[in-house]
Amino acid sequence: MDGGFFVSQTVKARGVRGAKESFEKVEITRRDLDEYDVQIEIKYAGICHSDIHTAHGEWGEVTDPLVPGHEIAGYVTDIGSKVSAYKVGDRVGVGCMVDSCGKCSSCEKGEEQYCLEGNVPTYAGVDKYGEPTQGGYSTHIVVTEGFVVRIPDELPLDKAAPLLCAGITTFSPLNHWDIGKGSKVAVVGMGGLGHVAVKIANAMGAEVTVLSRTLAKEEDGLKFGAKHYYATEDEETFEKLAGSFDFILNTVSAKLDINKFLGLLALDGTLVNVGAPAEPLDLHVFSLIPQRRSFAGSLIGGIRETQEMLDFCAKHGIEPEIEVISADDIDEAYDRVLDSDVKYRFVIDTATI
Amino acid sequence: MDGGFFVSQTVKARGVRGAKESFEKVEITRRDLDEYDVQIEIKYAGICHSDIHTAHGEWGEVTDPLVPGHEIAGYVTDIGSKVSAYKVGDRVGVGCMVDSCGKCSSCEKGEEQYCLEGNVPTYAGVDKYGEPTQGGYSTHIVVTEGFVVRIPDELPLDKAAPLLCAGITTFSPLNHWDIGKGSKVAVVGMGGLGHVAVKIANAMGAEVTVLSRTLAKEEDGLKFGAKHYYATEDEETFEKLAGSFDFILNTVSAKLDINKFLGLLALDGTLVNVGAPAEPLDLHVFSLIPQRRSFAGSLIGGIRETQEMLDFCAKHGIEPEIEVISADDIDEAYDRVLDSDVKYRFVIDTATI
Repeated sequence: MDGGFFVSQTVKARGVRGAKESFEKVEITRRDLDEYDVQIEIKYAGICHSDIHTAHGEWGEVTDPLVPGHEIAGYVTDIGSKVSAYKVGDRVGVGCMVDSCGKCSSCEKGEEQYCLEGNVPTYAGVDKYGEPTQGGYSTHIVVTEGFVVRIPDELPLDKAAPLLCAGITTFSPLNHWDIGKGSKVAVVGMGGLGHVAVKIANAMGAEVTVLSRTLAKEEDGLKFGAKHYYATEDEETFEKLAGSFDFILNTVSAKLDINKFLGLLALDGTLVNVGAPAEPLDLHVFSLIPQRRSFAGSLIGGIRETQEMLDFCAKHGIEPEIEVISADDIDEAYDRVLDSDVKYRFVIDTATI
Repeated sequence: MDGGFFVSQTVKARGVRGAKESFEKVEITRRDLDEYDVQIEIKYAGICHSDIHTAHGEWGEVTDPLVPGHEIAGYVTDIGSKVSAYKVGDRVGVGCMVDSCGKCSSCEKGEEQYCLEGNVPTYAGVDKYGEPTQGGYSTHIVVTEGFVVRIPDELPLDKAAPLLCAGITTFSPLNHWDIGKGSKVAVVGMGGLGHVAVKIANAMGAEVTVLSRTLAKEEDGLKFGAKHYYATEDEETFEKLAGSFDFILNTVSAKLDINKFLGLLALDGTLVNVGAPAEPLDLHVFSLIPQRRSFAGSLIGGIRETQEMLDFCAKHGIEPEIEVISADDIDEAYDRVLDSDVKYRFVIDTATI
């Protein structure tokens, strides 16, 4: 709050005024630029399942208003006096966090998502000025330059948007656990995250198998780069694939029988959850011991790694499959996400806000 | 069964004739030497908690008789015609397994404990000749040379015996997860496995903390090489140590609230269970995601690594704390193990069998 900080810019947004309320037009304020701040005109904002959990009050109290959105793509429209990395007109993105302490051991490693003080989420958080953060279902946002990433020219802004959450959330564990040529990888779930995971793991050189509840999206999965596609509603899948995979990325947030999936890992294999079921899992340690298996969790990715992910996607031509919608259709889009009726990510055209 | 194999040697042993029966004198047969077999006169056999589970029928039907014991130390008394690694008089040990397929990917890596065909356990298993295996509470055993290890001269046989299970079970995960100088390691439980784990982790250069239910064994723990000792019955322990450890080795087989222990891991930390509770654990994925934590299992160790562990213990003067007992006192020793009244391992003097 010291010095030249003022809350002064009113911008248009779409938000809810309580849990499970419909979206409506709201006005929110964005701060004037601090010396390291970047002002961004948002062009596209992806709809993530987390937005729905938050807007429905499942992850805590809903502020009035709550403006979700942490898959943000747009242009730089103004910069603070000390910003060096960006200039007006640059194509940029913002993901799930907009700040962190910058001093703890996690931040020093460039793993700001694991900031020991807690990172500042893009919405439903509180920024360093004590103000509530508001997300990307809006025309503009102001973010400190350390939490802004550059969108390569090869990536269209609408398709780049979902990479800021779905992309980094799946790229980071695949990258951290050294997936590469020869790796046998299974992706559980073929939704917003899963379909991007298939494309990324395939581009990394892995032999990718999709494990989806049914075979309904098999054709898509194979097109996105999977070599194999199995239905998990078929018990034979678990017998046939026992001990097959070096790495399993579970993108499903529902409570699965995790022991069945752990049984698919080979010696020293790891299953990573990027979704977190609300209920505890019933984990048998006997699912881990016999082949020295690991069960791990992973949370989005650091800013440096997010840039690396965007560059990787640009280089390999990886683009999420999206359906661009008007801001008037957010409620309907939420319903369709909950019905799994989306191929594979809704992206709001913020010109309609 | 092809060629020169005969069941012909009758040896003395102590065994049970049914679940929870008392131990009695029994006679069992050991096979004549196949060309790669080593005959061993057993001098000492450690009592492992697994022996009790098996003898009590908790891990399957109890054979008549069942002779437990997989912490075996003794001398070579005869060798098959093609044995090259050992000669009569050598000081040797046998651990938890006596054979494996030798051909699968795990065996080829020297990780016979994870043999994809299943390793042959030292007792309560079936060997390649179709005969039941019988363990170390006995005067002699015959084992193929690939599953015999050499006990360095520096290690007394009685103290070497527990290393064949308790030693390798704790050494292997510490070794596999690269524990060394600067590692912050917690050992959960200060029993037969835990007390050896403290000594080994300390010798590897780690800063070791013991997490035991109470502070009753604190003095011992510090003497064995721990720098810190905390009681887990004290809730403050979990607040104070949150996010502290790179690695936690859980030697307790009882069902713990695993989420509390996972919360003690730092970024990218791993908690490894070497014991397996019978019931599933209630694992919250939120215990893993925020710091990219892993929960893993580990099973004994391979033969090459078992030899490495014995050489490491000899070099660093690591010896388990033992109480040598007569074979007449096995039942009483079992009761005392179940009452946690042992410091820290019972070892049977097989001269009393």
